[in-house]
Amino acid sequence: MDEKVLTHFDEEGRAKMVEVGEKLNTRREAVARGSIYMKEETLLRIVDRNIEKGDVLAVSQVAGIMAAKKTSDMIPMCHNIVLTGADISFHIDEKNNKIDIEATVRTTGKTGVEIEALSAVSVAALTIYDMCKAIDRGMEITDIRLVKKTGGKSGDYIREK
Amino acid sequence: MDEKVLTHFDEEGRAKMVEVGEKLNTRREAVARGSIYMKEETLLRIVDRNIEKGDVLAVSQVAGIMAAKKTSDMIPMCHNIVLTGADISFHIDEKNNKIDIEATVRTTGKTGVEIEALSAVSVAALTIYDMCKAIDRGMEITDIRLVKKTGGKSGDYIREK
Amino acid sequence: MDEKVLTHFDEEGRAKMVEVGEKLNTRREAVARGSIYMKEETLLRIVDRNIEKGDVLAVSQVAGIMAAKKTSDMIPMCHNIVLTGADISFHIDEKNNKIDIEATVRTTGKTGVEIEALSAVSVAALTIYDMCKAIDRGMEITDIRLVKKTGGKSGDYIREK
Amino acid sequence: MDEKVLTHFDEEGRAKMVEVGEKLNTRREAVARGSIYMKEETLLRIVDRNIEKGDVLAVSQVAGIMAAKKTSDMIPMCHNIVLTGADISFHIDEKNNKIDIEATVRTTGKTGVEIEALSAVSVAALTIYDMCKAIDRGMEITDIRLVKKTGGKSGDYIREK
Amino acid sequence: MDEKVLTHFDEEGRAKMVEVGEKLNTRREAVARGSIYMKEETLLRIVDRNIEKGDVLAVSQVAGIMAAKKTSDMIPMCHNIVLTGADISFHIDEKNNKIDIEATVRTTGKTGVEIEALSAVSVAALTIYDMCKAIDRGMEITDIRLVKKTGGKSGDYIREK
Amino acid sequence: MDEKVLTHFDEEGRAKMVEVGEKLNTRREAVARGSIYMKEETLLRIVDRNIEKGDVLAVSQVAGIMAAKKTSDMIPMCHNIVLTGADISFHIDEKNNKIDIEATVRTTGKTGVEIEALSAVSVAALTIYDMCKAIDRGMEITDIRLVKKTGGKSGDYIREK
Repeated sequence: MDEKVLTHFDEEGRAKMVEVGEKLNTRREAVARGSIYMKEETLLRIVDRNIEKGDVLAVSQVAGIMAAKKTSDMIPMCHNIVLTGADISFHIDEKNNKIDIEATVRTTGKTGVEIEALSAVSVAALTIYDMCKAIDRGMEITDIRLVKKTGGKSGDYIREK
Repeated sequence: MDEKVLTHFDEEGRAKMVEVGEKLNTRREAVARGSIYMKEETLLRIVDRNIEKGDVLAVSQVAGIMAAKKTSDMIPMCHNIVLTGADISFHIDEKNNKIDIEATVRTTGKTGVEIEALSAVSVAALTIYDMCKAIDRGMEITDIRLVKKTGGKSGDYIREK
Repeated sequence: MDEKVLTHFDEEGRAKMVEVGEKLNTRREAVARGSIYMKEETLLRIVDRNIEKGDVLAVSQVAGIMAAKKTSDMIPMCHNIVLTGADISFHIDEKNNKIDIEATVRTTGKTGVEIEALSAVSVAALTIYDMCKAIDRGMEITDIRLVKKTGGKSGDYIREK
Repeated sequence: MDEKVLTHFDEEGRAKMVEVGEKLNTRREAVARGSIYMKEETLLRIVDRNIEKGDVLAVSQVAGIMAAKKTSDMIPMCHNIVLTGADISFHIDEKNNKIDIEATVRTTGKTGVEIEALSAVSVAALTIYDMCKAIDRGMEITDIRLVKKTGGKSGDYIREK
Repeated sequence: MDEKVLTHFDEEGRAKMVEVGEKLNTRREAVARGSIYMKEETLLRIVDRNIEKGDVLAVSQVAGIMAAKKTSDMIPMCHNIVLTGADISFHIDEKNNKIDIEATVRTTGKTGVEIEALSAVSVAALTIYDMCKAIDRGMEITDIRLVKKTGGKSGDYIREK
Repeated sequence: MDEKVLTHFDEEGRAKMVEVGEKLNTRREAVARGSIYMKEETLLRIVDRNIEKGDVLAVSQVAGIMAAKKTSDMIPMCHNIVLTGADISFHIDEKNNKIDIEATVRTTGKTGVEIEALSAVSVAALTIYDMCKAIDRGMEITDIRLVKKTGGKSGDYIREK
């Protein structure tokens, strides 16, 4: 390995999975939220549970929780960690024809679980899209963001507004 | 299996992976878009490629393409299909401090690839979040929607606006 | 590669994924069934949907369908194929304190989907176990068998009672 | 998120991955067993190792151990944990034309490994089915149950005969 | 999406999964080979099958075949395709203290299976390393190359020498 | 389970995932290297980044890091562990028309990460092959070996020469 180093790669910033071995195993939690907008009729049918593919929100919830567990397989530089819990809840916003999704993920580990919570929300929303797309291709997934994060050296984070 | 059927399950709509065996194998394409908003400084550092975890957009692009291929593993009722191609492109919107992501996915199969394209955009955006979260936890993923769909019996779809 | 062949391996029968390239792409279906026995109280709580981990059968059903899709990743010599549909149904057998699970899987491909249907039933049953184990470790998964198979060169199969 | 909560979802019991962050990391072990019945001729050919797809039990064993590791990817509400060991053994029961499968799984973690052991047995049995189905579609997988569990706050469990 | 395109990305060559929708579904085969060098004692113990972790080559073979199936999940720009068959064989080269591994993979699809065959050989070799590393950390995996490829528009390829 | 044990299986050595519960969680690191030989023209095009499938080394690096994380899913008897970091670097050797790949993987766990580092190098090399195979089917992956290992009870290992 005594040949010329690809130095221009370093200058541009090569990808790596950052070393966290020095970090402490501490209790960490992250809460993320997002929304999916749809037609009024679509929302009503989800609430009534008569979309052909099945009880949409029950499936979405399972998908979101499974996604939290496989986040490190989807997101290249994300550490694989052991989650201690994951939960997803839905809020029907009939006024705005949207469903709000909230995911809470926890670990006792060396890295935070922000991206696990955001992945859970994203996959839950994508699952809703998938199950309703036959009647509403125009649905839109939006406002996916971190709401709260606790634990870890970088301190707590609470999203303003 | 001559016992009482859980009929109230059917009434609510049980989940299933809808049978598509009668559908034709045709060329199908879907284009999806989404955006991730961030601080001005974050956008500048991505463009300059000096985020610690590496060349952010190169990694995001790989993650998005890999996500297109594993969509049926993430989305419970989504059919597993053979993709014939996938591509992702980024547009830097410096005026609004966001990056626009576009994914194009194609297949020659019995189902459309809308959800594959939307998954690719979502995972590409989540990857950007993951790689920049140390400097900007407030990033927001938004406006993930189907832009175009061609092929298949249900006809073409072009998003208005 | 002109060295001695490990011939005793061939004699014992080496594992391989059997070549099916000559087979035709035909419509194929498999139906499998199995049962999970439990305490009367456990069954009542599943029907009433008040197990702490959630609506047990809704989750079980999603797990079974996802398992059908990932069968070739679990079963070493099983071909990876494109499924055209998958469905799972439950029958509550209160007289015998068990739940009967039935999975139907279909493809238009070169191999049958018997093992996909059996995997779906198995994982659906394991999911019921997982969600109820806190109150009933003695549950037993049993009678997992192929009930019907149609399509393919080997002909149809209907299990005798 | 100040809109109406989908309260009827809570009443039915929403699915979640139960929080275990408060639990201790302790040594835990689970032993599960199951059986697969087959025709006499099938059993003889497995013992003689001349099934076309290869040495059936060697492949089954590998499949079972790999399944133990991917249990949390198959079972939706199952925690992903780090296993410290997994072992599978087979007993030929020529009198009853069946093979008994036993899996032992261990961890030093916050959750038990009952479902990992049961999954290992199930996938090992499914693999035997897959490799022999060309000569015996009537095989039946049965009696999959937890035999023993040690470690953890809920105490030890030994199945009564 | 009317903002400035990241044109310097195009100049450098952005990653994509190349579109193959125009290609024909034809029978394709690829054969790859590789070798793993080890200490004489290690080789003898593999042949005698008394390595603690088990019958090394049986496990290696299963791992290689499973790797062929999951190639598109490992290799980012590789198309996911349906394999029609996969086989792995070993040759013991006692003179040079190495094991030669050969993988043959086939499909009826739109892309070749060279990378699937090479992945199968690589993972089979890594598995041998893993199972023997406790007694021989110096093993070396080498000469992984495509030996033959048939089918597809680009024509056949036979490696010289 | 009082029937005849398949004792000849034990004699041959059955596969298992060795129990490591007694081992300590310590900091461990492994460094592996390998090379891929190619035509001069291929190497020049990689350096110039104009291979059709994209920036080859950026994609290869992502693939290698993701492979480190999924090693226990590829290698049957390998323990699933939590990695604390992973890094890959490339060295262009224009004199010999090859690219040298080096992977460094770290954990704080009960098992070493040699196989994770070797898998990362292998998959990084396979990715280079995949992206360049259209112009150079004769590339050869070679000299994949462990260079260094620290931590754990078995002591440090530094490869000679």
